[in-house]
Amino acid sequence: MKALLDQYPNADFCYLGDNARAPYGDKPADTILEYAKQATTFLVNKGAGDIVIACNVATTVALNELSQLYPEVNFYGVIDPTVDSVATDDPVRVGVLGTRATVSSGIYEQKLKIVLPKVQVFSVACPLFVPWIEEGFAETPQTDMVVARYLADLKDFQPDLVILGCTHYPFLEESIRGFLGERVKLISSSTEFVKTLPPHLFAGDSGHQEYYFTDPTSHTVDLAQRWLGEGIELQTAKL
Amino acid sequence: MKALLDQYPNADFCYLGDNARAPYGDKPADTILEYAKQATTFLVNKGAGDIVIACNVATTVALNELSQLYPEVNFYGVIDPTVDSVATDDPVRVGVLGTRATVSSGIYEQKLKIVLPKVQVFSVACPLFVPWIEEGFAETPQTDMVVARYLADLKDFQPDLVILGCTHYPFLEESIRGFLGERVKLISSSTEFVKTLPPHLFAGDSGHQEYYFTDPTSHTVDLAQRWLGEGIELQTAKL
Repeated sequence: MKALLDQYPNADFCYLGDNARAPYGDKPADTILEYAKQATTFLVNKGAGDIVIACNVATTVALNELSQLYPEVNFYGVIDPTVDSVATDDPVRVGVLGTRATVSSGIYEQKLKIVLPKVQVFSVACPLFVPWIEEGFAETPQTDMVVARYLADLKDFQPDLVILGCTHYPFLEESIRGFLGERVKLISSSTEFVKTLPPHLFAGDSGHQEYYFTDPTSHTVDLAQRWLGEGIELQTAKL
Repeated sequence: MKALLDQYPNADFCYLGDNARAPYGDKPADTILEYAKQATTFLVNKGAGDIVIACNVATTVALNELSQLYPEVNFYGVIDPTVDSVATDDPVRVGVLGTRATVSSGIYEQKLKIVLPKVQVFSVACPLFVPWIEEGFAETPQTDMVVARYLADLKDFQPDLVILGCTHYPFLEESIRGFLGERVKLISSSTEFVKTLPPHLFAGDSGHQEYYFTDPTSHTVDLAQRWLGEGIELQTAKL
C-alpha cells in the first residue's frame, strides 16, 4: 500500500488488512485460501473490480483459484511481476527470502527456472522478520544480528541477486544490504510489483481511500499512520 | 509439557501442539474457541478423559465452554492455579506479562482482584516473545534488549511480583529477572500449574507418550527434541 501511495497518492483505494489473522506465512495452504476467499468477498461487496494481492503467500496459494471463483474480478498477484523483473537482470545465483509458507511452496524457484533455466536458487525462511517489524524493532541496532542469523548461509552461497519475497521485508533492506554487501542486487516484491500494475487501475483520482482492518487496535492505528500517513482513519472489517 | 515431564517422567501422556496455527495469542476469541474445540475432539478420540490446557489464552477463552460441551472430560486450565499461587504471596503490586489476547481479556486482573481486593495490577502484552523463543533467539545476548523494551514501564510501576502469563515465557526468565531485579518475585504459570494438578492423573507409568503436532516440520522436530527429549517421535494431527 505504501508503494502504491508513493506512486499514486490521489488514486481511489479500498484497502483491507486481515491483521487479526496475520501473519499468513506460518499457516497451512487451505487456511490461507479460505481467508483469501473471505477477503475477496468483502472487497467485491465494497465494489472492487480489480484486486491487488499484496502478499506473497496469498498470491502463491490463492491467485489461481480466486481467478476461477470470481471471473468478473481482475486479480494482480505479486509473484509473477517479481520473477519477470529478476529475469531482465539475468542472474546466475538468486537468493529468496520469505515466510515459511512462501519458501516451502518453492514457487519462486519453480517460476525462476522457467524463465532462467540455468539459475541456481537458495531460499531462506525468515519467520521472525514480520513480528520484528510489526512490533517496531526494525530500527533498533539489534536488527543487524537478527538479519545476520538468518542470512549467514545465503551469504556463503554468494548470490548475485536476492528477492525480498514478503511485503514487509523492505523495512529491513538497509540491514540486509549491509550484511550481504553492495554487490548483491536486492529486488523488493512490492516496488517491482507496483511498477507493473496497469496505470488505468489508478485513474480515479478523487483521493477517496478507505482502510479496513480485521483488528484495528491502537497498535495497528499507530503502525498504519506511521506507514501510510498521519491522517488516515481505520475502519473495522468483519470477514 | 516440559514441566510435567520434569515431575512425572514415566507417566502416560498424549500431547497435542497446534503449531500450524500458533501463536493463538494474536487471534480473535471466537477463532481460539473453535480451535480449542477441534483439539478437544482430537484428544477425546485418542481416549483422553482428563485434558490439561497448557495455554493461557486457550484457558481464558475456552475453558468454561469446553467444560459444558464435554461434560465427561475433566479440564485443567492454567489461570486459576496461577492466581491461587499469587494470592498466597499477598502482593500489593502485581505485573502480568502475556500475549495480546490474554492481556486484552483482563482475566488475570479480574481474578486477582477477587482474591486480593486491594491489589494493583499492571499488564503488558509482549507479542514478540513467542516468535523470539520459537525461532531460537532466547539465548542470544539481544534478548536483554527485547525484554527491556517491553518491560520498561512495568519496571517503573515497581511490582512486588510478576506473572509470566504465557507458557513460553519461562525461557526468558533469566533476562526478565536481570532487568526487573532480584527483589521482584517471578511466578511462572507452567510450574505453578503442574504443582496443582492431581497426581492421580499421572498414575499411568508405562511411559507411553505420544506427541502430535498439526505441522511437524523439521524445525518443530528440532525444538520438540531440544525441550522434551532427544528420542521423541512427532506424529501429524489433522484437526
